[in-house]
Amino acid sequence: MVIDSNFFMSLAIEEAWKYQGYTYPNPAVGCTIVGKNNEILAVNAHQKAGNPHAEVMALKNAFLKLTGDVSLLDVNSSQEIHNYLLANHKGCFEDISLFTTLEPCSHIGKTPSCASLIANLGIKKVYVGSRDFNKEAACGNEMLLACGTQVQTSVLQKECDALLHPFYMWKKNRFIFFKWAQRLSGTTDGGVISSESSRKSVHAMRDVCDLLVIGGNTVRIDRPTLDARLVEGKAPDILIISREKEFDQTIPLFKVKGRQVFIEDNFSTCQEYKNIMIEGSAKMFAQSRDIVDYYVCYLAPRFGGTTGFENIQDTFEILNLQKDTQDIIIWMKRK
Amino acid sequence: MVIDSNFFMSLAIEEAWKYQGYTYPNPAVGCTIVGKNNEILAVNAHQKAGNPHAEVMALKNAFLKLTGDVSLLDVNSSQEIHNYLLANHKGCFEDISLFTTLEPCSHIGKTPSCASLIANLGIKKVYVGSRDFNKEAACGNEMLLACGTQVQTSVLQKECDALLHPFYMWKKNRFIFFKWAQRLSGTTDGGVISSESSRKSVHAMRDVCDLLVIGGNTVRIDRPTLDARLVEGKAPDILIISREKEFDQTIPLFKVKGRQVFIEDNFSTCQEYKNIMIEGSAKMFAQSRDIVDYYVCYLAPRFGGTTGFENIQDTFEILNLQKDTQDIIIWMKRK
Repeated sequence: MVIDSNFFMSLAIEEAWKYQGYTYPNPAVGCTIVGKNNEILAVNAHQKAGNPHAEVMALKNAFLKLTGDVSLLDVNSSQEIHNYLLANHKGCFEDISLFTTLEPCSHIGKTPSCASLIANLGIKKVYVGSRDFNKEAACGNEMLLACGTQVQTSVLQKECDALLHPFYMWKKNRFIFFKWAQRLSGTTDGGVISSESSRKSVHAMRDVCDLLVIGGNTVRIDRPTLDARLVEGKAPDILIISREKEFDQTIPLFKVKGRQVFIEDNFSTCQEYKNIMIEGSAKMFAQSRDIVDYYVCYLAPRFGGTTGFENIQDTFEILNLQKDTQDIIIWMKRK
Repeated sequence: MVIDSNFFMSLAIEEAWKYQGYTYPNPAVGCTIVGKNNEILAVNAHQKAGNPHAEVMALKNAFLKLTGDVSLLDVNSSQEIHNYLLANHKGCFEDISLFTTLEPCSHIGKTPSCASLIANLGIKKVYVGSRDFNKEAACGNEMLLACGTQVQTSVLQKECDALLHPFYMWKKNRFIFFKWAQRLSGTTDGGVISSESSRKSVHAMRDVCDLLVIGGNTVRIDRPTLDARLVEGKAPDILIISREKEFDQTIPLFKVKGRQVFIEDNFSTCQEYKNIMIEGSAKMFAQSRDIVDYYVCYLAPRFGGTTGFENIQDTFEILNLQKDTQDIIIWMKRK
């Protein structure tokens, strides 16, 4: 194992993927901070819109390690962390290196600009994976360079771009991902497949989806609620893909307040939404094939079941592989 | 991500799993060396019997980082690395911490004792995962303690024990693992499934297996060679499980020199061997169920194929998850 810039960036990338699907409308971003002797001071990710950016989380944790000043421990809002660090850093960040999967933001949005914070803390070395194509937030690299910070760009850029792709698609028009649960035997039928932890992860994604697409047969057979109750989140609007428009209105998904439910024989309703999750198995996989950007598979390490993805021939590129408490989570794109 | 003793040990564990299956008759062991400022100096694993132990590889790389003395670069034998480090360390290791998944060996075998090297280099802190139950090599912890080294035991012990389990079984009697290749769709039929890199990995395991077990139907249909040509390794003996004893002797596996081929309707020949790989799919999985210790699945991220593990209901615990260039490698045990 080689301990170099790529290693530090890869830690940031791995941490960020843990929150892929939860950060909409913000990008999944990771940040590693390395001290003057090459010691890892912090590895953090942006976890959810409204929470601090990855850089701010990592700078907070690095500050705690460098100074032992525990009064920052209970400071959680991004603005307050910015203010505290600017007022109390006393040059402690001067010799650190900061690795971020995405160019630090330069605009003041829900949180102050990270590029300005990094520059004002006197950080001299920043390693960046992806450039920011978002007009509002871009120019972070230039702002840092203007302040005398050394910026090395394109560190593991391909991997960072894959992490950032959903955000790119939201800015362009929309990001559509297909989620399924299966066993190691490839089967998708026969009751609950995923662990509690995997199902919580899916609910956290539903919480920030604006539209959830599902097949009519699944609705009729499973009678699902399709909300985000396991994370106390909001329930997305629903698009049921079905030629037959009649559904038993006592099926729980129809009773969730504040949600719209569409029943259509095509995906055109997707055009009104930005962050869209499709849940299904083989039939929906085939139907949605042309509009899906990413796939996420929750794979339970067991055999059993009888039907899965017969008659489908696709090959995937693995973007990220995680082990949950029990299941394997695989983010992929179709080749 | 928390950067603590468990993190450093987990790097050692991950590195060691990359060589699981290749190290027989030695255990798969990983070692991380951390400098006085908590910087990672080296993460290495034992790669193959005869090669230096994980601790020696890591100490060599840490020495290169600490001193910049490149004359050690081309020194590869364990004895020579020991001698060079002992003659040239000049106290550079005094403030480092060494994390090893297995108690350092205390006996002089093919390579000198790691515990003695660690003590003589003046290393003050050693973190150990598993205890060594091997009578010849044990007492490393005691040797270190006697020399004034602080030893913290049982760091991620459960994970380290899972890594060490094959070695435990070799010492007890034998280790039997079942290897299969499948697609994401769970299928095992229809031609080559795994990537070139995965197939090389399987050949590296065959190279150190003393017996490879395979089903009669596979032999008749696939007409395999079952050697280790992709890594220029030695071909293991073969046990064909088949009620029908007649085989076409032009099938390539029969023509490999220096190998014994048994054709039996049971697994009793396994009792004459120590490191046994079973290759197969559903039928062999079911037949060998009661004698297998670990499973390793090479999962190609694609659909297609028609048959797999129908009618089998087992559940697994995931021991290690790796991404190859293309495939996923999953080490598991049956629950």
